[in-house]
Amino acid sequence: MALVLWHATMSLDGFIAGPADSMDWMLGFGEEDSEVNELIKKIGAVLSGRRTYDVGAGQERPEFRRPYGGAFSGPVFVLTHKPPHDPDVTFLSGDIRAAVETAAGAAGDKYLAIFGADVARQCIEARLIDEVMIHVVPVLLGDGVRLFSKQQGELIHLELTRMSRNGQVTNLRFSVVG
Amino acid sequence: MALVLWHATMSLDGFIAGPADSMDWMLGFGEEDSEVNELIKKIGAVLSGRRTYDVGAGQERPEFRRPYGGAFSGPVFVLTHKPPHDPDVTFLSGDIRAAVETAAGAAGDKYLAIFGADVARQCIEARLIDEVMIHVVPVLLGDGVRLFSKQQGELIHLELTRMSRNGQVTNLRFSVVG
Repeated sequence: MALVLWHATMSLDGFIAGPADSMDWMLGFGEEDSEVNELIKKIGAVLSGRRTYDVGAGQERPEFRRPYGGAFSGPVFVLTHKPPHDPDVTFLSGDIRAAVETAAGAAGDKYLAIFGADVARQCIEARLIDEVMIHVVPVLLGDGVRLFSKQQGELIHLELTRMSRNGQVTNLRFSVVG
Repeated sequence: MALVLWHATMSLDGFIAGPADSMDWMLGFGEEDSEVNELIKKIGAVLSGRRTYDVGAGQERPEFRRPYGGAFSGPVFVLTHKPPHDPDVTFLSGDIRAAVETAAGAAGDKYLAIFGADVARQCIEARLIDEVMIHVVPVLLGDGVRLFSKQQGELIHLELTRMSRNGQVTNLRFSVVG
């Protein structure tokens, strides 16, 4: 069964996208990261939220419309109640557990990678995440889409399993505790 | 002249305090960090915000009412318009530049450490911060006091100068670019 990996790049102050979903602050950081390249090979499927999908779909360069800038060629699932037309993506709606089960089935014995703050939060709250990989980019944005937001409930304990540095980017890998 | 160091401990998702200013999520992490102990020796003065001061002042254990759990014995400045009675602290009001100048003067040729999100933001926006030290604790809080929040203006570029690990805590050290 696939392990579920929440994979995100964030600013030091905890944003995965800037104001108006801007992603340009990431450019020029860590583009050649052998650790990430190895990780991508272990990913069997991607499940993302609609906002993440839309940001990707709006990219000018075609390779940026695919996960990992085109370096990933496996199945992509998007959780949304209003699926657009896109034959390259499988749209899922409804319960997060069912969505993860479907996408994890497609990932086989590889990782299912989770993209996007809202889907990740739903997965965390349903205890569906096994591991977390965060790339910390050395900028302060001050506003935008938060890595993780919730208004109630217990804090989530992680266990740091690995840290590494790729140029200016810090790679932090965790297991979810409990 | 003192260098100005913004020093903070944050959750992975970018909070320096949890809901209701809770700090208990930090307990048990990185209490014996030789790198931090060495850094504390290089700090000549502390300038904190009122909220940070109040959280400290409310601690039951007397040593926790002082910066660095009592490991720091130098002058402490607090920026506030309504100073309470506390002979151990010098209260400053008004312009951030004047406050930093006063506190930096007291720090001599050591660091002036900046505590608290609001004072740090004011310092960042006034380009008064030279270095940043962040300790990343492996928890997700989802809500609380953000490391850095602002509604407008340019993003802040940092340069990663050092990373290290102390048990489960990641220490990230930066210079402010420009």
